[in-house]
Amino acid sequence: MIVVMKEGCTKEQVDRVVHLIREMNLKDHVIVGTERTVVAVIGDDRYKDRTVLESSAGVDRVVPILAPYKIASRQTHPEPSVIPLGGKLGTTVGGRRICVMAGPCSVESRTQCLEVAHAVKEAGANVLRGGAFKPRTNPYEFQGLGEKGLEILAEAREQTGLPIVTEVMSVEQVLLVAKYADVLQIGTRNMHNFNLLTAVGKTNKPVLLKRGWSAKLDEFLLAAEYIIQSGNPDVILCERGIRTHEEYVRNTLPLAIIPAVKRESHLPIIVDPAHGTGHAYMVPAMCRASIAAGADGLMVEVHADPEHALTDGAQSLTPKAFAEMMKELAAVAAAVGRQV
Amino acid sequence: MIVVMKEGCTKEQVDRVVHLIREMNLKDHVIVGTERTVVAVIGDDRYKDRTVLESSAGVDRVVPILAPYKIASRQTHPEPSVIPLGGKLGTTVGGRRICVMAGPCSVESRTQCLEVAHAVKEAGANVLRGGAFKPRTNPYEFQGLGEKGLEILAEAREQTGLPIVTEVMSVEQVLLVAKYADVLQIGTRNMHNFNLLTAVGKTNKPVLLKRGWSAKLDEFLLAAEYIIQSGNPDVILCERGIRTHEEYVRNTLPLAIIPAVKRESHLPIIVDPAHGTGHAYMVPAMCRASIAAGADGLMVEVHADPEHALTDGAQSLTPKAFAEMMKELAAVAAAVGRQV
Amino acid sequence: MIVVMKEGCTKEQVDRVVHLIREMNLKDHVIVGTERTVVAVIGDDRYKDRTVLESSAGVDRVVPILAPYKIASRQTHPEPSVIPLGGKLGTTVGGRRICVMAGPCSVESRTQCLEVAHAVKEAGANVLRGGAFKPRTNPYEFQGLGEKGLEILAEAREQTGLPIVTEVMSVEQVLLVAKYADVLQIGTRNMHNFNLLTAVGKTNKPVLLKRGWSAKLDEFLLAAEYIIQSGNPDVILCERGIRTHEEYVRNTLPLAIIPAVKRESHLPIIVDPAHGTGHAYMVPAMCRASIAAGADGLMVEVHADPEHALTDGAQSLTPKAFAEMMKELAAVAAAVGRQV
Amino acid sequence: MIVVMKEGCTKEQVDRVVHLIREMNLKDHVIVGTERTVVAVIGDDRYKDRTVLESSAGVDRVVPILAPYKIASRQTHPEPSVIPLGGKLGTTVGGRRICVMAGPCSVESRTQCLEVAHAVKEAGANVLRGGAFKPRTNPYEFQGLGEKGLEILAEAREQTGLPIVTEVMSVEQVLLVAKYADVLQIGTRNMHNFNLLTAVGKTNKPVLLKRGWSAKLDEFLLAAEYIIQSGNPDVILCERGIRTHEEYVRNTLPLAIIPAVKRESHLPIIVDPAHGTGHAYMVPAMCRASIAAGADGLMVEVHADPEHALTDGAQSLTPKAFAEMMKELAAVAAAVGRQV
Repeated sequence: MIVVMKEGCTKEQVDRVVHLIREMNLKDHVIVGTERTVVAVIGDDRYKDRTVLESSAGVDRVVPILAPYKIASRQTHPEPSVIPLGGKLGTTVGGRRICVMAGPCSVESRTQCLEVAHAVKEAGANVLRGGAFKPRTNPYEFQGLGEKGLEILAEAREQTGLPIVTEVMSVEQVLLVAKYADVLQIGTRNMHNFNLLTAVGKTNKPVLLKRGWSAKLDEFLLAAEYIIQSGNPDVILCERGIRTHEEYVRNTLPLAIIPAVKRESHLPIIVDPAHGTGHAYMVPAMCRASIAAGADGLMVEVHADPEHALTDGAQSLTPKAFAEMMKELAAVAAAVGRQV
Repeated sequence: MIVVMKEGCTKEQVDRVVHLIREMNLKDHVIVGTERTVVAVIGDDRYKDRTVLESSAGVDRVVPILAPYKIASRQTHPEPSVIPLGGKLGTTVGGRRICVMAGPCSVESRTQCLEVAHAVKEAGANVLRGGAFKPRTNPYEFQGLGEKGLEILAEAREQTGLPIVTEVMSVEQVLLVAKYADVLQIGTRNMHNFNLLTAVGKTNKPVLLKRGWSAKLDEFLLAAEYIIQSGNPDVILCERGIRTHEEYVRNTLPLAIIPAVKRESHLPIIVDPAHGTGHAYMVPAMCRASIAAGADGLMVEVHADPEHALTDGAQSLTPKAFAEMMKELAAVAAAVGRQV
Repeated sequence: MIVVMKEGCTKEQVDRVVHLIREMNLKDHVIVGTERTVVAVIGDDRYKDRTVLESSAGVDRVVPILAPYKIASRQTHPEPSVIPLGGKLGTTVGGRRICVMAGPCSVESRTQCLEVAHAVKEAGANVLRGGAFKPRTNPYEFQGLGEKGLEILAEAREQTGLPIVTEVMSVEQVLLVAKYADVLQIGTRNMHNFNLLTAVGKTNKPVLLKRGWSAKLDEFLLAAEYIIQSGNPDVILCERGIRTHEEYVRNTLPLAIIPAVKRESHLPIIVDPAHGTGHAYMVPAMCRASIAAGADGLMVEVHADPEHALTDGAQSLTPKAFAEMMKELAAVAAAVGRQV
Repeated sequence: MIVVMKEGCTKEQVDRVVHLIREMNLKDHVIVGTERTVVAVIGDDRYKDRTVLESSAGVDRVVPILAPYKIASRQTHPEPSVIPLGGKLGTTVGGRRICVMAGPCSVESRTQCLEVAHAVKEAGANVLRGGAFKPRTNPYEFQGLGEKGLEILAEAREQTGLPIVTEVMSVEQVLLVAKYADVLQIGTRNMHNFNLLTAVGKTNKPVLLKRGWSAKLDEFLLAAEYIIQSGNPDVILCERGIRTHEEYVRNTLPLAIIPAVKRESHLPIIVDPAHGTGHAYMVPAMCRASIAAGADGLMVEVHADPEHALTDGAQSLTPKAFAEMMKELAAVAAAVGRQV
């Protein structure tokens, strides 16, 4: 890090900063400029608290130089990670093949789920998604079928061969969900739930980590780091939109995060355009765009009867619309040297 | 709610919307305008899923009329709530007296905590704050002393008489923290952690609920509603800054939420300017502004040695600066008919 | 629009609202719900001031139903507009062919500009871009060559046949810039400069209108409406990124605006990923994504020596990188039924 | 500035950076850390283009150390500026006395304007505000009375003695508006209109500069710098809210900018809570908060008949509400050692 002193700081203040740096077992290097003095800190300061220096008298600010994450970073692991998802079909995320996760927002009933599962399989999806535990902003809304939903998902896997991904909302659900699911999903609202990140990091199931609504890229990769350093290297990042002033979408979907993640990290990244926009009519365009930008996969909500979906009907595709979109995606994937 | 149809929608589409509204046991009222047809929905539609209507063919959008929260709303409970915090001193939040919660960001040691506790008591604080379990974005940073920290806080309460508020980070910590704390704090990162909201809603301790970084006002009040409808009416709201494009602050502190909450809800609201700005030098100005705007209290970080604070030193006041600020706050409180 | 009354409003207050609606020569329709009364307004209220109603006693809020723009809307003009840019090559924006506008951020010298012009022509660009008047946040930075720059651009057009697009910054520059340019660019900072919008609306040159950093979609289309209703129907929209909390990009590029504009308006939309991200390494991925999402064109900064560019070197491609990207774009365009 | 090299950069790349720094007539200082090499740049690099370095091979990023503005900065001018506004009453902004600018959003008629002018004078306002040229997002809305409005304002000044502030929207209006107004207002939408900033910088009238909706603090102070370096030192900053995801306000009003401006600049800052929130009911609370936070003044919209205001009625106070608020403000000002 670089400590920028205030204009007119005293020699004692600079000495104090130097002293604090040495207390951290780091080396200092003072540079006196024409207007400002800065003190460069030499050594791995990633795990040191820079507020120590920020609070010292005469300090204007502290600029970090090293990224705060380490094992999630591309520097530590230059090759892109390819995450195996389990299941009979050998599905992976992060290789040449685009991974399409599709299914209903919520598992609502056995019939509904199996119908969609077969439809998305037929259309070319690689993974079945579906919520059994649902985080709902409104306490009066449908909260999911719970374990019953997990059983239905497992039956759908049995019938289709597709691995299943489903959300786990709290530490005490981890073992239960891991018993059924092939991939554990951490939702947007839990990206900063560090106890939960640690808990899924202790399982041997791949984790799909959704970005928080207002998370910075560093924070997103640090959340992945929590999981990896707890023992689980199989993290798949998922962009699902951020909160901004835009009003024609439910969230703003920032696809430039795809090249940014590819540069900073070895982890694969997929995109969820349904939550990322909130409107079914935008989903096909944003799925095509995600693949063109280099995403490793997609998460898409499909519902046979969106009008009667218990959750998020307005952003779900019908099986027919999904099948049509999959054909378009195949063409775009080929254009960028990938395969759906 | 109001269903706005697309221009050129068909009669069948309007009929379908009417049918769906009746399926929900609500009444419909169709209004044919010069350019658009709208269908007003009559009845309490708060607990109905409006995406059902949003996904119906020919529908442009659905506009909610009723606020989604009910028991947190001022309509249900016109008088402002005054929340008793327990403790020997009869401290409350929401009455004429401004409640000042002060103390270290983290409990670091017995000595550090007791020293600050006595100092803030002396200067006029009403509640002692301090973190025993710390949510840290970076997995390599100090995570708090855990139960040991809670014991130290309890001792500080013993010595000063101040009730204590401390954060609970996950469902499995609730009982432990509730054993020691007078007020349970739900942090920003957990405002959307619905399992945790429900769990603290089942205790008999008041809950300090911090607003999420990107939460809308409706979502903030719905999070309070989760707690209240689980059985615990004693919720104190806390504004602590939101994520925006501003770069001279860590977060943007939107004080207009104070009159907005006063109008929409009966719950008291306090402000945390340290997290809300990230800079100690801004804290006194924003504390004064919060009180002038009608806040019911403040949360302030105080550390005897900010340079060596293990967390958030850069936004902590020294005991001396805190004592000076308290004098200024007394004058501002008097100017708006309140008392510190 | 729909006037939502407060809970417990009086009959007199509703009558007053009805009176105000009739004063505007509109019709009213009162609906008494179980909890709220709403008053629907019937007629074309686009040009009425809804704050009249918002300020009336007992009114909670007013919800607009009709979009505020009219001649820019798809309802008025269902077919997509194809805008001819002039020049020998018959270039258009909005048809099947993707329009790629490329060139230096600023015209710095005759040699620099002509070199890039030939290079981008060779690589397949359809329009030459280059700034002669530069809006600079910092008053001490390079402000552009002015008319000299326009002359150089005109010479480059002469040599390459490419029509030229360049920015006009203020009303008094309009005639001068229109004398040289084929397309007048309105920059991000001027999207809300209504005098300038009106002035370019009185020329017969197509206008490239960049979205403001924090403009809502309605405001963007209303800015286009200013130009069109001044007499100039040839408006090309350009998305170039918005201000958000994201820190790994200079701006967040929200590509979902592409399907949104296609649904709301008949105007073509292009994307500027260089300003939209701020980093040259992200430009190819975001160009591919834009085309996949349905954009009608791209604006790309190309500089033979980005290190010595006087402006925005960090987001410029070299001619070689541009030529490589054009090949990739051809494949993506073909995949979505377009052509570069 | 500090040039941070990528991990694994070559010696040639560092040498190239050193070469580029010397080309700028600055000095370099290379520091080889354990993981990264950084190159500190010594000298006044404020007017150098850092994208030169950002585009050089092997460079990860460039961190500025010096603030980009100079004559607007507190370092250059340590004492706070007190700006005289002209007029018989010797009104100033920036001293101990809080300056309250009040009046209608738009001048609508002679009667309306004079009535409000006398009312606000009576209640204690120091300056009369009113719009003659109105920037309207919607081309179909009331655009102001133009010169007729300026004449009415001048008559109101004649009768009340209050200096007048009114908006100038474009370069060609500057002379006309300066003929009548005591203070020239640059609106939010024009903060980045550099030609206009330069034009008002060439007059001898004080300038009230409103912050752009998405402007960063650096950009706000650089806009002031444009005016000052054109010859006019009398700039008053005005915060009026920024665009964020918040939905219960029209804009988010970030009052922490007040201590930030006081630390970075010598210029006075006032607050406009009407535009800053969009709701009249929030205005008194936010006026009190602004003064408590250290603002040098306020801008408030007052209309005798908000229901029939041609613009922004929903955020205007009635003369009675304004007079009541002024009494509260006097108490808050006294509490912070100021005077209304």
